[in-house]
Amino acid sequence: MQPVSDRVIDSLRSALGPRGVLTARDDVAPYLVDWRGAHRGDARAILRPAGTEEVSTVVRLCHDAGVALVPQGGNTGLCGGAVPDSSGEQLVLSLGRMRRIRRCDPNDDSITVEAGVVLRDVQQAAADTGRLFPLSLGSEGSCTIGGVLATNAGGTGVLRYGMMRDLTLGLEVVLPDGRVWDGLRTLRKDNTGYDLKHLFIGAEGTLGIITAAALKLFPATPRRVTAWVAMPDVASAVAMLALLREHAGDHVSAWELMSRQALDLVLAHAAGTQEPFRREHAWYGLLELSAPRATADLDATLETALGHAFERGLVTDAVVAGSPAQRKSLWALREGISEAQNPEGPSLKHDVSLPIGDLPAFVERAGRVLEGVLPGVRRVTYGHVGDGNLHYNLSKPVGATDADFVARAGELSGAIYDAVSLMSGSISAEHGIGTAKREAARTYKDPVELDLMRAVKRALDPDDLMNPGKVLPPA
Amino acid sequence: MQPVSDRVIDSLRSALGPRGVLTARDDVAPYLVDWRGAHRGDARAILRPAGTEEVSTVVRLCHDAGVALVPQGGNTGLCGGAVPDSSGEQLVLSLGRMRRIRRCDPNDDSITVEAGVVLRDVQQAAADTGRLFPLSLGSEGSCTIGGVLATNAGGTGVLRYGMMRDLTLGLEVVLPDGRVWDGLRTLRKDNTGYDLKHLFIGAEGTLGIITAAALKLFPATPRRVTAWVAMPDVASAVAMLALLREHAGDHVSAWELMSRQALDLVLAHAAGTQEPFRREHAWYGLLELSAPRATADLDATLETALGHAFERGLVTDAVVAGSPAQRKSLWALREGISEAQNPEGPSLKHDVSLPIGDLPAFVERAGRVLEGVLPGVRRVTYGHVGDGNLHYNLSKPVGATDADFVARAGELSGAIYDAVSLMSGSISAEHGIGTAKREAARTYKDPVELDLMRAVKRALDPDDLMNPGKVLPPA
Repeated sequence: MQPVSDRVIDSLRSALGPRGVLTARDDVAPYLVDWRGAHRGDARAILRPAGTEEVSTVVRLCHDAGVALVPQGGNTGLCGGAVPDSSGEQLVLSLGRMRRIRRCDPNDDSITVEAGVVLRDVQQAAADTGRLFPLSLGSEGSCTIGGVLATNAGGTGVLRYGMMRDLTLGLEVVLPDGRVWDGLRTLRKDNTGYDLKHLFIGAEGTLGIITAAALKLFPATPRRVTAWVAMPDVASAVAMLALLREHAGDHVSAWELMSRQALDLVLAHAAGTQEPFRREHAWYGLLELSAPRATADLDATLETALGHAFERGLVTDAVVAGSPAQRKSLWALREGISEAQNPEGPSLKHDVSLPIGDLPAFVERAGRVLEGVLPGVRRVTYGHVGDGNLHYNLSKPVGATDADFVARAGELSGAIYDAVSLMSGSISAEHGIGTAKREAARTYKDPVELDLMRAVKRALDPDDLMNPGKVLPPA
Repeated sequence: MQPVSDRVIDSLRSALGPRGVLTARDDVAPYLVDWRGAHRGDARAILRPAGTEEVSTVVRLCHDAGVALVPQGGNTGLCGGAVPDSSGEQLVLSLGRMRRIRRCDPNDDSITVEAGVVLRDVQQAAADTGRLFPLSLGSEGSCTIGGVLATNAGGTGVLRYGMMRDLTLGLEVVLPDGRVWDGLRTLRKDNTGYDLKHLFIGAEGTLGIITAAALKLFPATPRRVTAWVAMPDVASAVAMLALLREHAGDHVSAWELMSRQALDLVLAHAAGTQEPFRREHAWYGLLELSAPRATADLDATLETALGHAFERGLVTDAVVAGSPAQRKSLWALREGISEAQNPEGPSLKHDVSLPIGDLPAFVERAGRVLEGVLPGVRRVTYGHVGDGNLHYNLSKPVGATDADFVARAGELSGAIYDAVSLMSGSISAEHGIGTAKREAARTYKDPVELDLMRAVKRALDPDDLMNPGKVLPPA
């Protein structure tokens, strides 16, 4: 890699026009740090192409000049994947001006959008034609389609609809040499060779720049029932998943788990929340059934399923939302967890996944191991139990200092990842690798798999100019 | 590539034992030709390893000796992908002895099986634990999991459950140098780098040998209703898909289309079939709703949906199966089509896909173009309309000779593929490329995409020893 010369900046400016190249420090600054302030870098310029042809031009010019590019969407990532390094030798390529919805076709159940379109705008465009685009995340008001593709985002709809990878029909990608791959098909079936879109989805921009995508739409689901339940243990939550599916099949659209410790924090710190039951329980679940027909009798289905769950002792108490306001207040208990950790001091966040049937054993094992490392450490366990995905976060023991807790961070995370690894789980279920988990990937991923990834990277980006330093630990 | 020496055969025999290496002509012969007799090759030996370690040994020995391998499962492919070339310099690697179901876990909704397990045995193992493995094809009694993975097989369950790719959680693959990649995870979420399994699925053995897979299971669907309907045109079939989904959501598990010409052949040649309605209609559909609860009221859902369809003129007649026997006889009309073409002389088969909303325009356009090429040519149009996938087959005009028809084959297929290509469709929706469509792939695939595929191939299999000559047209 080389420092970016004036000549390169000049040729980029003449290709993109003055709106397309930001170099003033104030203009550049917001692109150099992620939204949490956890990752920070430097760059001489931010490139803001207005269309695919301009992205192609940028990539070709930078390729010829040996300049590395860091693609950036809504900058809402959690692992530093969209932040340049500190050398100042990389340029940020923002897709933020590419906000066109190219086509929305309810007959074909597809929507084709550019990389800079905000997720919520895709959801809205789908809704406007009576369809559902089901990806749903906390950051949906600012994250972009390019970003959720690059990180294969998940969220609360995965149980029913899959991750971003599963929602994608086709891609348009600018390759590392500037050529455009037009894989923007809306076909449901295409067996004419390697399915290349899956290489770019989840690659965090290290193999090319996604400029547009064709996505799947689903029938809108105006009918919805929501319940909050108490459970004695995690095994009950796993058994409930099978029970719910048996009774309600694909109507099961959410099945979220949280521990009493997680609920405690929400009740203590989130305004307007209240204890859902008269007495405390060890574990809680939030479940939702949804259906495309407004007349679908989900209440009866839910009642029958909960009846069986009570009989089998899987559920010990339950409340069904009787109004949209009550539904909202139940979801607030689940959605408030992440923020409710903040007043408790620093938190250590882990986004792990396990084979679903192994979740109970994992929670037991990890709890035991952590108690050995730091007695009293608080485990704020919650997540998407239907996906085997736990946000297994830690807060300091009551009475401990922040410094004491932070000093043990590496040891605590290591203990969790060791347990995950022993049980064939993943150290990053839905957040990706970026730079934050690159070294953990080196430790916990199969060396053969890392070799394969490097071979693919070398084949597509031999000069290592596409988001270098991300995802792949150096050999 | 080099001719296979006695020394290589000897070392393979000492690694695999006498059962693992077949060289007698009678033993070898069945592996040299596909089941239809359309593709034929030669090989000095058939290798039949009994486990992953033995596959690894075979691949390493052949890699070191520069000998190419052609993996083969149930040998039911339609494009010649599992047949060796005619040089006699390739060896066939049969996975047929790897028939172990390693694990079936209903809690985790997963099953882990070796490559040589027959599809029907996977379906059965799932059913034995109250689950469904939904891939379903005509050849399910003999095709193997390795084969359906290598070709990303489809079939009649795709509308609801997706193709083989969508049903796969993890893979175990022996790489071209003999190393084993253990990607046999059962995780629903894992964002720790490139999702490599998607490279091997659908690659037809050109990037490595799939030795085992972890697959998704679903709730069994004991409740099912089936109906046969008449429709005025293809546009009605497309509109019906949206209508059915609106009313029945994911209960819609099959929506198959066939033309009157297709039905005519079945009625003429398939024993025991009978005209479904009193008068003839231009198009027919076979629809099925299914549900996990035996008590689900699918009859009412179907009745309501059909009522709306009649009102809108999408459906002009309908019969609902009143018994399992009647259901079977309705499916026989659909399943008899392929075979019913045989008595009509040679047939030209095409497995194309289009954006679903473009199916009506495609059928109109292709029909018009073909009529110009060969007046009276019979279009036996049927397929999975919910997937945009048509088996658009041709039979000779009534009264024409076989020779006259066969002489125009290239021109007729070219006209169809031109129309598909113009409408952004695929020339192989679910059958793959093999050798049969390799040259068509050269003509109809984006050169940038072919370049990308070749770059991946070179990166993973630089010596071109994994099923050489398949899928990729030479540069």
